[in-house]
Amino acid sequence: MTYCVGLLLRAGMVLLSDTRTNAGLDNISTYRKMFTFEEPGERVVAIMTAGSLSVTQTTLARLQEAIEAPEADPESSILLAPSMLQVAGIVGRTLAETRKTIDGRVQAQGKPVATAASMIVAGQRKGGAPRMFLIYSEGNFIEATEDTPYLQIGEHKYGKPILDRVVEPGTSLEDGQKAVLLSMDSTLKSNLSVGMPLDLAVIEDGACRVGLRRRIEAGDPKFAEMSGAWSAALRDSFARVKI
Amino acid sequence: MTYCVGLLLRAGMVLLSDTRTNAGLDNISTYRKMFTFEEPGERVVAIMTAGSLSVTQTTLARLQEAIEAPEADPESSILLAPSMLQVAGIVGRTLAETRKTIDGRVQAQGKPVATAASMIVAGQRKGGAPRMFLIYSEGNFIEATEDTPYLQIGEHKYGKPILDRVVEPGTSLEDGQKAVLLSMDSTLKSNLSVGMPLDLAVIEDGACRVGLRRRIEAGDPKFAEMSGAWSAALRDSFARVKI
Repeated sequence: MTYCVGLLLRAGMVLLSDTRTNAGLDNISTYRKMFTFEEPGERVVAIMTAGSLSVTQTTLARLQEAIEAPEADPESSILLAPSMLQVAGIVGRTLAETRKTIDGRVQAQGKPVATAASMIVAGQRKGGAPRMFLIYSEGNFIEATEDTPYLQIGEHKYGKPILDRVVEPGTSLEDGQKAVLLSMDSTLKSNLSVGMPLDLAVIEDGACRVGLRRRIEAGDPKFAEMSGAWSAALRDSFARVKI
Repeated sequence: MTYCVGLLLRAGMVLLSDTRTNAGLDNISTYRKMFTFEEPGERVVAIMTAGSLSVTQTTLARLQEAIEAPEADPESSILLAPSMLQVAGIVGRTLAETRKTIDGRVQAQGKPVATAASMIVAGQRKGGAPRMFLIYSEGNFIEATEDTPYLQIGEHKYGKPILDRVVEPGTSLEDGQKAVLLSMDSTLKSNLSVGMPLDLAVIEDGACRVGLRRRIEAGDPKFAEMSGAWSAALRDSFARVKI
């Protein structure tokens, strides 16, 4: 499983992903699920992935190839596309094609292997607004809005209540980091197939670059302290609420 | 969908269920999902249900029939069984048989209708300890313990983080009520197929009767006040935690 969450705030975007991958409960590994592409000051694109690792890795490899050799097909480079909407379209198309190919092979073997995958694509190009999309296996997508300024993929349920209560478009980037970390903390506590280390990224509006990038390892003292303080604050709040 | 939760505390048991039933999103109804059986002072059994309504209603009707006409088969009455373990066994057997019959009919029609159902059975007989079981569709069951003193059926994820943080065997019955109500509150906010009114029951250890029974209607002022106070306390805690 996986948990990735992205916030689209007026001040910019905050992204957080875990790194646990598992093929069965007896086979777990650590894989990065957040990928960033930059032309600093001109354009930034971040992609987070969930689902079949072979599908998401192949999709990312194809996107990377298209960036490195744009002459083959300029319309496939996410660093050349004229809008973030078209970036989402390229990622969706590449994901759907990759999944179709792999799914065909798996079906031909008659094996019940899940090939579903989804991605969050967040980015901004100079002169445009920051935008964030959730791309489905089939290549179609939805976009974060003022009404619902966050997107989640993977194990989204445990970490949703805190987001619903504290995240709104006017939330600061610092509070946004706190919100995604606490949302992840609830998820880590309840689903073993979501695991440390974590990757955190912050993209300030207008900067067109990743302003902050932090890998949070298991046992990170700041994360542990925040997690402990949150648990204590929750218990304290619980004691104060009257029924 | 459904959300039912039961706490097994040293002071007794606290049970909460919603009442929303849906056959598709365009067909929702209100059905009680909590049923209590008492011989006050001698024995109390409470059952909460989730899953296929035809399966759970038929199961409950059969259990009721066996109570009313114990001469047909004394070993099928949950008010006569010599232990709570055997009560769980009767409920499990009745549920599994009912499901098998209904599943057979559904399969024969070739319709993809889900017949899965699960139940929480909580109770105490005079001289015995309070016990709580989660009964699966197949009739097998697990039991709440000191390590994990709660059981959930239905949409369990949104409401689990709060239980993990505040519920332990030594929790008071009053705090237990608060915990299940806040757990339900998070679930109601995130899953439309879980809905008001709610049924709350408290069974004090040793009393062998339902001590408190409360139906909480949509718009209940005390519940709304508690929900608002909890949201405010969470936002306040969020503001105080440092990252």
